[in-house]
Amino acid sequence: MRWVKIQRRNLPRLSLPLHPNTTRRKTRQSQGIPREMPLLVMKFGGTSVASLDRIRRAAKRIGREVANGYDVIVIVSAMSGKTNELVGWVEETSNLYDAREYDAVVSSGEQVTAGLMALTLQEMDVPARSWSGWQVPLKTDSAHASARIKEIGTDNINAKFAEGMKVAVVAGFQGISPEGRTTTLGRGGSDTTAVAFAAAFDAERCDIYTDVDGVYTTDPRITDKARKLDRIAFEEMLELASLGAKVLQTRSVELAMRYNVRLRVLSSFEDNNENAGTLVCSEEDIMESNVVAGVAFVRDEAKMTLLSVADRPGIAAAIFGPLAEASVNVDMIVQNISEDGRTDMTFSLPVNQVERARQAMESIKASGDVNYAQLVTDEDVAKVSVVGIGMRSHAGVAAKMFSALQNEGINIRVITTSEIKVSVLIDRKYMELAVQALHDAFELEKAGV
Amino acid sequence: MRWVKIQRRNLPRLSLPLHPNTTRRKTRQSQGIPREMPLLVMKFGGTSVASLDRIRRAAKRIGREVANGYDVIVIVSAMSGKTNELVGWVEETSNLYDAREYDAVVSSGEQVTAGLMALTLQEMDVPARSWSGWQVPLKTDSAHASARIKEIGTDNINAKFAEGMKVAVVAGFQGISPEGRTTTLGRGGSDTTAVAFAAAFDAERCDIYTDVDGVYTTDPRITDKARKLDRIAFEEMLELASLGAKVLQTRSVELAMRYNVRLRVLSSFEDNNENAGTLVCSEEDIMESNVVAGVAFVRDEAKMTLLSVADRPGIAAAIFGPLAEASVNVDMIVQNISEDGRTDMTFSLPVNQVERARQAMESIKASGDVNYAQLVTDEDVAKVSVVGIGMRSHAGVAAKMFSALQNEGINIRVITTSEIKVSVLIDRKYMELAVQALHDAFELEKAGV
Repeated sequence: MRWVKIQRRNLPRLSLPLHPNTTRRKTRQSQGIPREMPLLVMKFGGTSVASLDRIRRAAKRIGREVANGYDVIVIVSAMSGKTNELVGWVEETSNLYDAREYDAVVSSGEQVTAGLMALTLQEMDVPARSWSGWQVPLKTDSAHASARIKEIGTDNINAKFAEGMKVAVVAGFQGISPEGRTTTLGRGGSDTTAVAFAAAFDAERCDIYTDVDGVYTTDPRITDKARKLDRIAFEEMLELASLGAKVLQTRSVELAMRYNVRLRVLSSFEDNNENAGTLVCSEEDIMESNVVAGVAFVRDEAKMTLLSVADRPGIAAAIFGPLAEASVNVDMIVQNISEDGRTDMTFSLPVNQVERARQAMESIKASGDVNYAQLVTDEDVAKVSVVGIGMRSHAGVAAKMFSALQNEGINIRVITTSEIKVSVLIDRKYMELAVQALHDAFELEKAGV
Repeated sequence: MRWVKIQRRNLPRLSLPLHPNTTRRKTRQSQGIPREMPLLVMKFGGTSVASLDRIRRAAKRIGREVANGYDVIVIVSAMSGKTNELVGWVEETSNLYDAREYDAVVSSGEQVTAGLMALTLQEMDVPARSWSGWQVPLKTDSAHASARIKEIGTDNINAKFAEGMKVAVVAGFQGISPEGRTTTLGRGGSDTTAVAFAAAFDAERCDIYTDVDGVYTTDPRITDKARKLDRIAFEEMLELASLGAKVLQTRSVELAMRYNVRLRVLSSFEDNNENAGTLVCSEEDIMESNVVAGVAFVRDEAKMTLLSVADRPGIAAAIFGPLAEASVNVDMIVQNISEDGRTDMTFSLPVNQVERARQAMESIKASGDVNYAQLVTDEDVAKVSVVGIGMRSHAGVAAKMFSALQNEGINIRVITTSEIKVSVLIDRKYMELAVQALHDAFELEKAGV
């Protein structure tokens, strides 16, 4: 049986009509700020500002960048746990809540951190002030709770830089709708806020401080040979992010790629030198890299197969439309070669969505929309992927991957490939073994292979 | 020795250039809202919204007023304890903090309650939405952390009423400065917000829901004969508020008096009928009242006397200027008749400010600005006052008070009087006895005496 890839889940589309680079540079100049005063965006996540003590530690890092000659825009999240508390209150209050009120409540956490951070910086004699989303303004559409950034006004903040402010502390994750109400960008929106500010203000770099010290070739808990990458290409980071390496929100990486914002991921809990963390950048900025950058995995996957489906035009839509309506996140989709006008259709999905998917499939069979012989479900699979832009110019990556798995006696259930990625579904019990074997086979513990 | 009153602490001045009543009525009409749709302002303090459960109870009260045919503006405080938490963080961050950042942090609590209250009302099918200070807008001056209300824009909220919104939930205590930054009105500012909204929107009444069920003739913990007042005049409430009956913030009462806003104080923990609580109103609305409305007291007072001060023009300023600079809240001031060009000057102050006052007095003696023979301090006094607008037309209140105290063998240290109040300083150990004796003497347990 031969599998043919026909589709993969699309990444969300972004719309951010910011000025192109040249215009943005001019904007900063027209505010009387000399070009030789470079600007840095620094983003601190919830664990990095979880207490007054951690806010002070973050403020010291900011102070050092100011001493290095930077103007700094700091994007802060809510103190760790605060957003969950607020979301919990909203959900306890009502089931089908008004997203506008949800946003009014949930956006308050970032406002608190921004004020406290500005105070802490002032206490260190660093001229700073806080900004809410509506004060900047960061304009979004009206899609409350998952709004998209439309435009970032740079005049107000640049005017304050011109007056001598060194740090603008901006509440992440929030903006203002055309109706004048507070919006939020959805979970992880502070990363996206940071990248959008870096693009709008033409920042030299966007530093994302988090609780890990960079992006690794794979999860160090699976193999101690995992190596921190100094640099990784946007495209690779996108594949890793969407494959379960939860360092950066997918949307923020995509935005960074579109506007060519150099993103650095680094730890707020360690002293960092200039080469700390991982720089996510365009592939032109990566002098030398491995063919394979890393091995990613998703543990709790399931696989469903519709056996003997009538192979007619529109059959895929008839199956995957109802799955989308049932909020099933279908990932890999494969269809084998048709025999006698019938085919088998296989797809992967998160384990906890199997029941929803099963109901959807039974209902399209009952309604006569799709006729299939049997629905086969395997809830004990995991996905393992190798990712690397080097694959574009190097053949044989897939073959090397399959042979490494074969050497360990691991059977491959499904394969899909993209330009820079090969993914396989395997039995979950072999997942760690597969990751270790692939890490070894591609010699990821060494740089520049 | 005869005491002559020369001065008492001034109440803070207010400035709120709102439209006069006629203009305000027109504004509401011009928004297409018929005059026959009356409007109510309801304010819920921190303990009344301390949990989701209490927010639901408050929402039910609001729902009942909507069912009664009212449009309602609800002013909410932060959930009990939240503001203290936020203030604590700010104070821990820096000693001399930027009040603009203090306001950015501290104002977030009311925003959370407003959103949750709007959601709760929506869940009960009451059309509601939340408003932050900047969204209303409630415009203030730039005196961050203790800003004064300048103007309340009524157009935005009235437009939503015209579209069918029944309840506008407004975050209390906050506004927006001319510079576009969030301001707060200082502690107790939510009461002031409520009264200002009632004035601006020409509300039928402003109901202040709190944790007591009204204003009493005196503290029920001192005598079980204390009686809840159905009505009290603004002037009486002002004297009681500034004398330590902490039901309403002084500033809100003063504002209500100026704009003739009928204020009702009532409990959010009891089922209230139409006559629940205490109505604070102009004296024309009080048909029948006792000569004395209530007995107030301040327990922890001190008395300081400068013996044998040179009685020359400007001597009072030379003494009380430095006290004000030392942030001493001087209350009663009395000066006896001058003999041989020298006099004694006595004033009262809170016990915990005695040390500051003593240092100020020693320093003006050391500098030669004021020459006095001796500084005598008595830290064991309390202030007891009888208050009532009936005193204006009834003589003999002071005489009756003094004789009631004399009958109990209580010695009077200092006396001051105003048009509607007589206050005495007595030894603290007699305070409860004095309050009980005065309550009995003026028969305050009975209405209409």
